[in-house]
Amino acid sequence: MMDEFELIAHLTLSLNTNDSTVVGAGDDCALIDLGLPDRWLLFKTDAVVEGIHFMKTAAPEKIGHKALGRCLSDVAAMAGTPTHALITLALPADFDSGFLERIYAGINTLAKRHGVAIVGGETTINPERMLISASVLGTVTRGKSPLRSGAKAGDAIFVTGELGGSLSGKHLDFEPRLSEARWLAENFSIHAMMDISDGLAGDLRHILKASKVGAELLSDAIPISRAAKLAARADSSAKLPLLAALTDGEDFELLFTAAGRDGVPLLEAWKKQFPELRLSCIGRITAEPGVTIRDKKGVRPLSAHGYVHFQKP
Amino acid sequence: MMDEFELIAHLTLSLNTNDSTVVGAGDDCALIDLGLPDRWLLFKTDAVVEGIHFMKTAAPEKIGHKALGRCLSDVAAMAGTPTHALITLALPADFDSGFLERIYAGINTLAKRHGVAIVGGETTINPERMLISASVLGTVTRGKSPLRSGAKAGDAIFVTGELGGSLSGKHLDFEPRLSEARWLAENFSIHAMMDISDGLAGDLRHILKASKVGAELLSDAIPISRAAKLAARADSSAKLPLLAALTDGEDFELLFTAAGRDGVPLLEAWKKQFPELRLSCIGRITAEPGVTIRDKKGVRPLSAHGYVHFQKP
Repeated sequence: MMDEFELIAHLTLSLNTNDSTVVGAGDDCALIDLGLPDRWLLFKTDAVVEGIHFMKTAAPEKIGHKALGRCLSDVAAMAGTPTHALITLALPADFDSGFLERIYAGINTLAKRHGVAIVGGETTINPERMLISASVLGTVTRGKSPLRSGAKAGDAIFVTGELGGSLSGKHLDFEPRLSEARWLAENFSIHAMMDISDGLAGDLRHILKASKVGAELLSDAIPISRAAKLAARADSSAKLPLLAALTDGEDFELLFTAAGRDGVPLLEAWKKQFPELRLSCIGRITAEPGVTIRDKKGVRPLSAHGYVHFQKP
Repeated sequence: MMDEFELIAHLTLSLNTNDSTVVGAGDDCALIDLGLPDRWLLFKTDAVVEGIHFMKTAAPEKIGHKALGRCLSDVAAMAGTPTHALITLALPADFDSGFLERIYAGINTLAKRHGVAIVGGETTINPERMLISASVLGTVTRGKSPLRSGAKAGDAIFVTGELGGSLSGKHLDFEPRLSEARWLAENFSIHAMMDISDGLAGDLRHILKASKVGAELLSDAIPISRAAKLAARADSSAKLPLLAALTDGEDFELLFTAAGRDGVPLLEAWKKQFPELRLSCIGRITAEPGVTIRDKKGVRPLSAHGYVHFQKP
């Protein structure tokens, strides 16, 4: 039985392509060459569904923010600049127009901040629940998008911000790391990059698989959010903070690799450029496949979902 | 109380825009100038929902065809060439992978025929029913997209194909009029164009409103599909065929206007170019607002939904 990722990978393998497609399905955005002398286009779509990606009781502005923000985070992962977006709202027939206005207000505020024009808004009926689909167009300097497939053995692995516990608020309130990603690609040779939406443990594997490499993570270096720590303290049946940081998902931070020798200069330059956003070097890319994690007790394999090898002490 | 169109028009009025946006919300596609010397970009999204736009029992290939085809029909309405598409499938957790493969097969066959690369396929959960959202990118010769706002008093109004009764099959099986629209824009001065998705009576009003004009239709000239005629014959409570042609919707034919003096040469050139696809001149654009329809009994106003002024004889 194929899981969702395998099925989609299988289906998208046989999809029609054409000469202007640089990268199709499988990276954070599609990469398209329509003949602009200095730029390629980025093209991405994503959807959020009530009861799955947000609760009905969430502030409508935040729902709108998340719907667009997820796509912008994917544009960031390609070191691009989003330019235009389309929104499709599918919602129960008895929708409240004030609620809808507030969703659009959330979309619009984020769009404005990043210079994105909202060039269309469709609505349709989805009787049982709200679904918002966003599509984003952007551009990137020709040849300058770090792909998932570019990681090399010996690379240092970095992550922005702090991970885990996103469900307690950040998943509706994150800021796509657009300027940070562009600065990285302009100033350093970034080998591979993606955004963390499914959790570090799972998303890292997308880079490793595409790059045909492995990784060793440093347990102590993984930046754990205050939210994940608080959740573990409040509820003894909650995930341990490290596990939350590895698996919670919806962090919408950047995960990237660069040559090991660039590690220190990169961290130092980052501190000057973005003093308020933490950047962590969390491990290194290895030639051997698989993911291991190193802590005081030694090196252990990390399962695909991060769960198996962690227990409460 | 605003209806859906008014609400969306209201919401989209205040959406963020930027310098590269030529036309935002409100036409068949957004029109974008990213600096390509000879072309503008077209950008469009649309969604189909189970139980609304297709029945669960429909052939999955046809569902896929419709999901992509609706967007391609919008690109046709701008006289453009679609280049890339993204698909989002939202579906119940217990979906059947064979069904999904057949949906993608329908999408892919249509994409291949029109040279469209499918550059991404997302899936998410929509527990109660399937929803497919497609986003399409395309190009058009700079300045050559006929907009809804270009109709002028004295223009002849044209429609391709035959209208009405789409629900009996065509709505899942239509062919986007891409080559026809490009030929029209290359060979004639097309003042306004759109595709018919909500029915001739309703869609024509979008052109009239955007162009600040009215229209007089010729009852006998409106091309009525065989499906609409058969439906009326089979069921005495069904719509009269003319009403069906005016209001059924999902015809995905082209509705356009050109200067009255171009009418005859256009019809003659069309016959040679597309001998198998009917083209009808169905009336003319008037300076006075509103829509009237002329038949043997005289000229009568046509209501917004086409319904009011028609009765069985």
